[in-house]
Amino acid sequence: MPVSSKSEANAVAAAGFAGIYDPVKPYLAKLDAFLSSQIAEMEPEVQAQVRYVFSHSGKRLRPMLVAYSGWEGPKADNFEQLLRLGAVIELVHLATLVHDDILDEADTRHRQKTAAKKFGSAAAVLIGDVLFSHALKLAADFPTTEVCRAVALATARACAGEIAQTYQRGEVNYDRKFYFRVIQLKTAELFEVSCRLGAEVAGYSEAFAQAAGLFGRHLGIAYQIFDDLVDLYADESMIGKTLGTDLEKGKFTLPLLLLLEQLPADERETLLTRFKAGDENIAADFSERLHAFPIFEAVVEIFEAQLSQANAAIAPFAEKAVPAMQQIAELVRAQLGRLERN
Amino acid sequence: MPVSSKSEANAVAAAGFAGIYDPVKPYLAKLDAFLSSQIAEMEPEVQAQVRYVFSHSGKRLRPMLVAYSGWEGPKADNFEQLLRLGAVIELVHLATLVHDDILDEADTRHRQKTAAKKFGSAAAVLIGDVLFSHALKLAADFPTTEVCRAVALATARACAGEIAQTYQRGEVNYDRKFYFRVIQLKTAELFEVSCRLGAEVAGYSEAFAQAAGLFGRHLGIAYQIFDDLVDLYADESMIGKTLGTDLEKGKFTLPLLLLLEQLPADERETLLTRFKAGDENIAADFSERLHAFPIFEAVVEIFEAQLSQANAAIAPFAEKAVPAMQQIAELVRAQLGRLERN
Repeated sequence: MPVSSKSEANAVAAAGFAGIYDPVKPYLAKLDAFLSSQIAEMEPEVQAQVRYVFSHSGKRLRPMLVAYSGWEGPKADNFEQLLRLGAVIELVHLATLVHDDILDEADTRHRQKTAAKKFGSAAAVLIGDVLFSHALKLAADFPTTEVCRAVALATARACAGEIAQTYQRGEVNYDRKFYFRVIQLKTAELFEVSCRLGAEVAGYSEAFAQAAGLFGRHLGIAYQIFDDLVDLYADESMIGKTLGTDLEKGKFTLPLLLLLEQLPADERETLLTRFKAGDENIAADFSERLHAFPIFEAVVEIFEAQLSQANAAIAPFAEKAVPAMQQIAELVRAQLGRLERN
Repeated sequence: MPVSSKSEANAVAAAGFAGIYDPVKPYLAKLDAFLSSQIAEMEPEVQAQVRYVFSHSGKRLRPMLVAYSGWEGPKADNFEQLLRLGAVIELVHLATLVHDDILDEADTRHRQKTAAKKFGSAAAVLIGDVLFSHALKLAADFPTTEVCRAVALATARACAGEIAQTYQRGEVNYDRKFYFRVIQLKTAELFEVSCRLGAEVAGYSEAFAQAAGLFGRHLGIAYQIFDDLVDLYADESMIGKTLGTDLEKGKFTLPLLLLLEQLPADERETLLTRFKAGDENIAADFSERLHAFPIFEAVVEIFEAQLSQANAAIAPFAEKAVPAMQQIAELVRAQLGRLERN
């Protein structure tokens, strides 16, 4: 059975998380219960579809960021605050997944049919809208408009990132600045907001919340780089498949950009011309060239630099959340380690 | 050139509005300027697409409801408050139009290509998301979370209404209760919120805001009934086209429901069986039968009852907004009148 690189990334991730995130297990259990309880708050016409989307067993990585960044914060009800915020962020994330799967025409996610495949694209547009609207409704239960504002802004930016990427398809923009702009928007924004607001709603200082946001931003960039590596390397080494799906969709991720930078100009032009012409063997050829250069190592270096910046942002603080946040950074590093060992 | 009934409804509406809404002309001019100014606040990757969506010359009916319901309210800055709220509501409305046009596979809206047609469905999903996110970001600029909450809830309900309608397609649910449930969700909710919040942000009392909301709800139901009539009657009488597009999409609107109620059981069953089998002549036959019964008159009666309920809700109040709101109800009635005269 062909396994999409997306499912593979999640399988790798789930295995990597399993033994490590014990401290937030009660939080994640309560989060799932809280999300389930929200179904009854929705209109009867959408409950079955939302229940289906919730049943995808995602990693709940963003709620974990929320929980860790506000861990044992000064507010007496910090756990409840973090629970609600985690639900808001996860709902926004699920909404973007449901919409992204329409764009990508993806069939499966988390080894389950996507909402677009199960209910049709048209219904999936609306299901995503319902999830996003419900997120904002929950966000409005916080005492100030800060959560609504930050979540709305992060979503608008994530969409802009997806649009930039969508419009790139068919063309080739192998500028690193463009790549980092896209992953900053489409991934790192929500990571940043998760951490900053997590610290805030738990009652930590503004200075710490800002640092937590910076931590989230760099962790998000590192995570997306890892995810892009999985697409190109996990399948080949772990299940014998060839080059992943990103290139098929015209997404030039960091490994491919580094390759293009290192190729002699004439070879680069030939490959790009063949890519634009829709040459069927192009993926295999990119893959072959990818292994002729130390690209993996170069990407890991950039990944490590982002993780260091994440850790450096919170290093000066003595807040109880810091060790928990460092642990999650370690977890992301461990996942990349699993990829290297294979 | 074939003109969709949707464009036709808007043409009718625009003509109907032209001479009447002078009092809010400065408001609507400022609203357009405010919306345009928001483009610069968005990420560069989405600005061209948003500018395109804004250029559809819609009627701005919902912002008019906002402006009228809070007209000359007690708050010193009531005009600015109503401007921001009108922009929030219009952005939400535009977002739902962009997404609905994907669902309906519509080619034109307001005599211009839909976003889905112009940029592709995938991009249109994201453009809708950007508009909605930006609406919520603006909503977060109000001092409390009330606007965010109400707008998010209305959007979730509008989506549920669309989902109910989408799932009905192919089947036939000719229950009036179902029809009213759908139009309450997909149209009347946002009308209600426009009026209630308009009164609130302009500083009117909670009692008046509630009454304004009720006004909006009944006006919204009346407006959707008018819109459904246009689909079946405007094209035929005004530009010689046959039955509209709603039935083609499997939407059984009020006139069709009333017809089904009045037909002898065996004829009803025959028509429905042919409809389900995808009979190509079914629209023409429905149209022919529609004119054999006084359906138009029966629908107008239900429309009038809703308008009366709208006006009754605000009649006990002496607020300055009341005459303006009565005027807008009159305007909706005048549009229906234009339809009858043709």
